Amino acid sequence: MPYNELRKDYLLDRWVVIATERARRPTDFAKPKTESTKTVSCPLCPGNEQMTPPAVLVYLPSDGGIRKDKEEGDFRSKNWVLRVIPNLYPAFVPPKNPADGEHVMNGDSFGNAIGHHEVIVESPNHGDHPADAEITQIVQVINAYKDRLGDLAQKPYVKYVQIFRNHGLEAGASLSHAHSQIIATPFVPTIVAGEIAASKTYYDQHGTCIFCDLIKKESQNPCSILDNAHFTVFAPYASVNPMEFWILPKRHDSSILSLTPAETEAFAQTLKATLKALKDLVNDPPCNYGIHLSIDKDTDNYYHWHLEVYPHLAIWAGFEKSTGVYINTVAPETAAAELKKAFNR
Amino acid sequence: MPYNELRKDYLLDRWVVIATERARRPTDFAKPKTESTKTVSCPLCPGNEQMTPPAVLVYLPSDGGIRKDKEEGDFRSKNWVLRVIPNLYPAFVPPKNPADGEHVMNGDSFGNAIGHHEVIVESPNHGDHPADAEITQIVQVINAYKDRLGDLAQKPYVKYVQIFRNHGLEAGASLSHAHSQIIATPFVPTIVAGEIAASKTYYDQHGTCIFCDLIKKESQNPCSILDNAHFTVFAPYASVNPMEFWILPKRHDSSILSLTPAETEAFAQTLKATLKALKDLVNDPPCNYGIHLSIDKDTDNYYHWHLEVYPHLAIWAGFEKSTGVYINTVAPETAAAELKKAFNR
Repeated sequence: MPYNELRKDYLLDRWVVIATERARRPTDFAKPKTESTKTVSCPLCPGNEQMTPPAVLVYLPSDGGIRKDKEEGDFRSKNWVLRVIPNLYPAFVPPKNPADGEHVMNGDSFGNAIGHHEVIVESPNHGDHPADAEITQIVQVINAYKDRLGDLAQKPYVKYVQIFRNHGLEAGASLSHAHSQIIATPFVPTIVAGEIAASKTYYDQHGTCIFCDLIKKESQNPCSILDNAHFTVFAPYASVNPMEFWILPKRHDSSILSLTPAETEAFAQTLKATLKALKDLVNDPPCNYGIHLSIDKDTDNYYHWHLEVYPHLAIWAGFEKSTGVYINTVAPETAAAELKKAFNR
Repeated sequence: MPYNELRKDYLLDRWVVIATERARRPTDFAKPKTESTKTVSCPLCPGNEQMTPPAVLVYLPSDGGIRKDKEEGDFRSKNWVLRVIPNLYPAFVPPKNPADGEHVMNGDSFGNAIGHHEVIVESPNHGDHPADAEITQIVQVINAYKDRLGDLAQKPYVKYVQIFRNHGLEAGASLSHAHSQIIATPFVPTIVAGEIAASKTYYDQHGTCIFCDLIKKESQNPCSILDNAHFTVFAPYASVNPMEFWILPKRHDSSILSLTPAETEAFAQTLKATLKALKDLVNDPPCNYGIHLSIDKDTDNYYHWHLEVYPHLAIWAGFEKSTGVYINTVAPETAAAELKKAFNR
């Protein structure tokens, strides 16, 4: 019996066993699609704006482009193409006095979960999917990420902003209407803090950004999935999820805030193309993605924003939960080869 | 709106938001039970021994007690009360030369996944459940944990042995026959290594074992669930899973290897009582448990074995996977109070 391979993440002290003995092909994960049951009263659908808190940001259709509604103050507008609302059940809650960081962290064992938790309703159409959406719509979503990030990152009690998307009930999406989420936190979370610390160590040792070096290396390797003028996409060496892939911008930047219009459009195209390949290959699996970034100026030289896609195709069970070590039955090289094939279908 | 609470694990740099705004009571998690579909050809059922690799350990019924079959060499015996077999699809695979640790870890970024992966078939009865089993049967299972741990821990390439149990398809149990698993690894996994390092720091600072101190403290707190002569059970302060609880032995020991017969019986009774409370309260939820222990003599003074129970009642989604920070909608104090009530039903 051949050995399975034990691999460490590029940056984190996170190990995975690449155990392909079960020889599952990516398509083996495809499940018959259960029709998403659209409730008659989806709180994110147009006409139900009274079911949610007032929006903090609304994009309205205008002649040829999009226009922000901030100045109009009508945050219950029904005529929208995208809206951002506070989460009705927030994990992180704004402070009573927004000017300071009261009670942010108390000692090193607890604190108030101060911050923000918002929902980005990506489209008025309940069933829209980024794999099939118009590029203009995905560009709108990315612009909303930037708008809200820019606003939240300026608050004195915010140390990190996590932008993420859950798709499918099994991946934690309790609402099936197309939406992303943003959570602003009073500290830099464990995984991102670990990446920042390790990329600083690398920068101190090599004088270069580890992600910039990875882009050069992995875009030439079998784990490469897509490579264009602005972005590269690959299955990371120590993927903890079957079919996991990362999208990295070629221009070094620690955050998405200064994406140019051309880069934003390229990001939208890259995201759509890869999510469509995954959807076609594994029959629209439950899936999460998250943008890793930094809002701390001190990290500008060595931290490099990217988007990580986590298809929800395996269950983390007693071994993973007890040890923090993962078992992945699909080699990243196989995942990349299959996703590349899916582009040409 | 009140703040949610941000809590850090006793030992690990692992944070959780206790977000009870959704006000879910533990019983809200109860799902209607789908009948477990027993396949006609369960490979773990008696009579199907030829479907698995030969056993490495068999317990046979004998007059009044249990007897090991090792010396008889009939590892395909059909007359068994418990058997341990190699996993047909092992995550960790024994080395070609068992005498040494060849290729165990190559540099710090990869290695061969050398070790062992075994399945403990806990009973000949397909549907047995530890919440309803005879104490003698659970004692047998714990004895099998000890027997296999003792054997595996002596191998030169083994640095850690993870004993765990998956129950229910959604918690990763691909077979519904009552079973546990054991994985021996060539390194101490991330979470356990983190606990060992932090408990050493605590020992160096305070001269005491942090778990011994926790036992005194938490057995007096509202998160206490059960306390008897040999064990205490509580919902940990920074539980990352709804209804999570830990079982800690009162006698300081880094491993289960020297459990006395009286302690083993008390452990079986404690495990059964708490798993039964969980089963009654949340309608037999999918669940994992894992034993955290150390096989390194150097850790004897400061590491303290325990069993952690992870009910599978929430989905770790884009936020958790991106950040390593968890959101728990049931406060540990509430979990403890409800589990205590369930004892008296």
